Amino acid sequence: MIKDYKDKYTGYKEIIDDKLNNVFEKNVPAEIYEPLIYILSGGGKRIRPVLLLFSCEAVGGNYMDAIYAAVSVEMLHNFTLIHDDIMDNADKRRGKETIHKKWNRDVAILSGDALLGLAYNTLLKTKSENIQQITQAFTEGIIEVCEGQGFDKEFEVKGNVSPEEYLMMINKKTSQLLVSCAKIGALIGNADANSIKYLVNYAEHIGLAFQIQDDLLDITADEKKFGKKIGGDLREGKKTYLLLKALDVVDVKRDKIILESILANKGLKDDEDIFKVKEIYKRYDVIDSALNEIERYTVKANEYLNELKNKEGRDSLIWFSDMLLSRST
Amino acid sequence: MIKDYKDKYTGYKEIIDDKLNNVFEKNVPAEIYEPLIYILSGGGKRIRPVLLLFSCEAVGGNYMDAIYAAVSVEMLHNFTLIHDDIMDNADKRRGKETIHKKWNRDVAILSGDALLGLAYNTLLKTKSENIQQITQAFTEGIIEVCEGQGFDKEFEVKGNVSPEEYLMMINKKTSQLLVSCAKIGALIGNADANSIKYLVNYAEHIGLAFQIQDDLLDITADEKKFGKKIGGDLREGKKTYLLLKALDVVDVKRDKIILESILANKGLKDDEDIFKVKEIYKRYDVIDSALNEIERYTVKANEYLNELKNKEGRDSLIWFSDMLLSRST
Repeated sequence: MIKDYKDKYTGYKEIIDDKLNNVFEKNVPAEIYEPLIYILSGGGKRIRPVLLLFSCEAVGGNYMDAIYAAVSVEMLHNFTLIHDDIMDNADKRRGKETIHKKWNRDVAILSGDALLGLAYNTLLKTKSENIQQITQAFTEGIIEVCEGQGFDKEFEVKGNVSPEEYLMMINKKTSQLLVSCAKIGALIGNADANSIKYLVNYAEHIGLAFQIQDDLLDITADEKKFGKKIGGDLREGKKTYLLLKALDVVDVKRDKIILESILANKGLKDDEDIFKVKEIYKRYDVIDSALNEIERYTVKANEYLNELKNKEGRDSLIWFSDMLLSRST
Repeated sequence: MIKDYKDKYTGYKEIIDDKLNNVFEKNVPAEIYEPLIYILSGGGKRIRPVLLLFSCEAVGGNYMDAIYAAVSVEMLHNFTLIHDDIMDNADKRRGKETIHKKWNRDVAILSGDALLGLAYNTLLKTKSENIQQITQAFTEGIIEVCEGQGFDKEFEVKGNVSPEEYLMMINKKTSQLLVSCAKIGALIGNADANSIKYLVNYAEHIGLAFQIQDDLLDITADEKKFGKKIGGDLREGKKTYLLLKALDVVDVKRDKIILESILANKGLKDDEDIFKVKEIYKRYDVIDSALNEIERYTVKANEYLNELKNKEGRDSLIWFSDMLLSRST
């Protein structure tokens, strides 16, 4: 059964990859289309389009009706990556050079802009009576993800950020695009208002669980499995859920000084310091607290699925949650 | 009569300005909404929204139905300005500091991105049976303007650019957004296919006339009336219609060397050199050729209007052409 969903996911992923490789009808100006072909063929888990297709099926729709929309949300996601990578001065993405690095800043700005237009162009090929609501859901996703990035940038320089503010930010930056995917899939499948609501709540909660898990893995992962050195977020001085939670609960001055030095020095350098912070996280139950939050959000997400009538659709999305949280595959 | 259209334009402009000043329902994150409120309240002729409203009326529609769409095309236009100003390293826009200058590069990228999403959000408030085609026309405008900017950037570093390539580029960069405005207005007014075609052709041709006139005024304008020194494009080494046309026709080596030095040195410094180029432009009839092209495109644009049934709408758009080409007001 689980294998079936994995096969289904792989099949959908292949369709999406294939469509992404042939989504443009032209190749000039090269300043725009070369970098876009480069990034769209550069792999990725295609989580968002698959969530959209699964959501469409979960309300009884035909995934074939949702292919264009699925491709468009992946294009939208890549638009955010191109521009975020400029802002974060990131050199690499999925193991390849970023566009602003391989070409230049202007090419990255412009090809990103064009990609957003081209994403709408693809979305609008969808045949559905609900096209206005579908386009609205897509648009809300863009606005939310931009606002999330805006808060993220503000939080980088803001002294005090509470765990609650952090959750608000990742809700916008990560969850709301998943919400758009679930909503668009459901609308294409002509879902009733209640089913849309359940799927939206599911996507929002699974997104929060996913982001907190991402923060947690940075400190608890097995380096071999993880494929990179642990503590990368601490090295960069990133305000993660764990760090903000720890700052919120530490009551021993010495511990507080260590944590605050991460922010003051904009990151840690020594492995020894990383180890010290990990110890603090353990001592103050920050790791358990993160695990609890992930579990709480996942359980809540899956509870919303129980309200869906279609058992097959429900099971595929439960499998999707597990896959997203790296519990299966 | 002319005064009536001017009053009408002024009235519509006021409505647009007012809506733009109140278009956002929130003001955080400040990184996004502060610069957007700043740029949208910074003036401008509001040519695109007015063309959209006039086009709606020219096919018998009610301009009230098109207000959201009109506001959205001005938001879209400002999105292009924010990002173009980064790429052009421009310090000023409409006499005020550009966003990337007043804030920084990242704020300009992100607030521009958000503005595009917010523009769609505003467009989608339009109530029309044609909403899918309307959103498609809006999207085509974005893609065309990005492609135009891409070609513009490529032409900056390309050795030989023909006047025909230049026209293709300004068609994309300037005309096609006007085309979107005319089409959206017509679609909201439930125009028949022919009327849409006439308005689209009108907008395309008037856009070309407008851009060539912009290039021409840089060299022929009265400095006092123009409000800035003439020859700015030559000082920047910009490949304008006049320069490319001149490069195409000069047959005396000495003249060719002068023109090519503009590109080689990336612009002229001395007023004397500007004067020399102006003399070359005159000697080879480049100025007359530009005047002819402007006239030819304007006549052609207005000919398409003759096909429209509504006399009042026709006259308002002829007035609009004159206004755009600074022949009235």
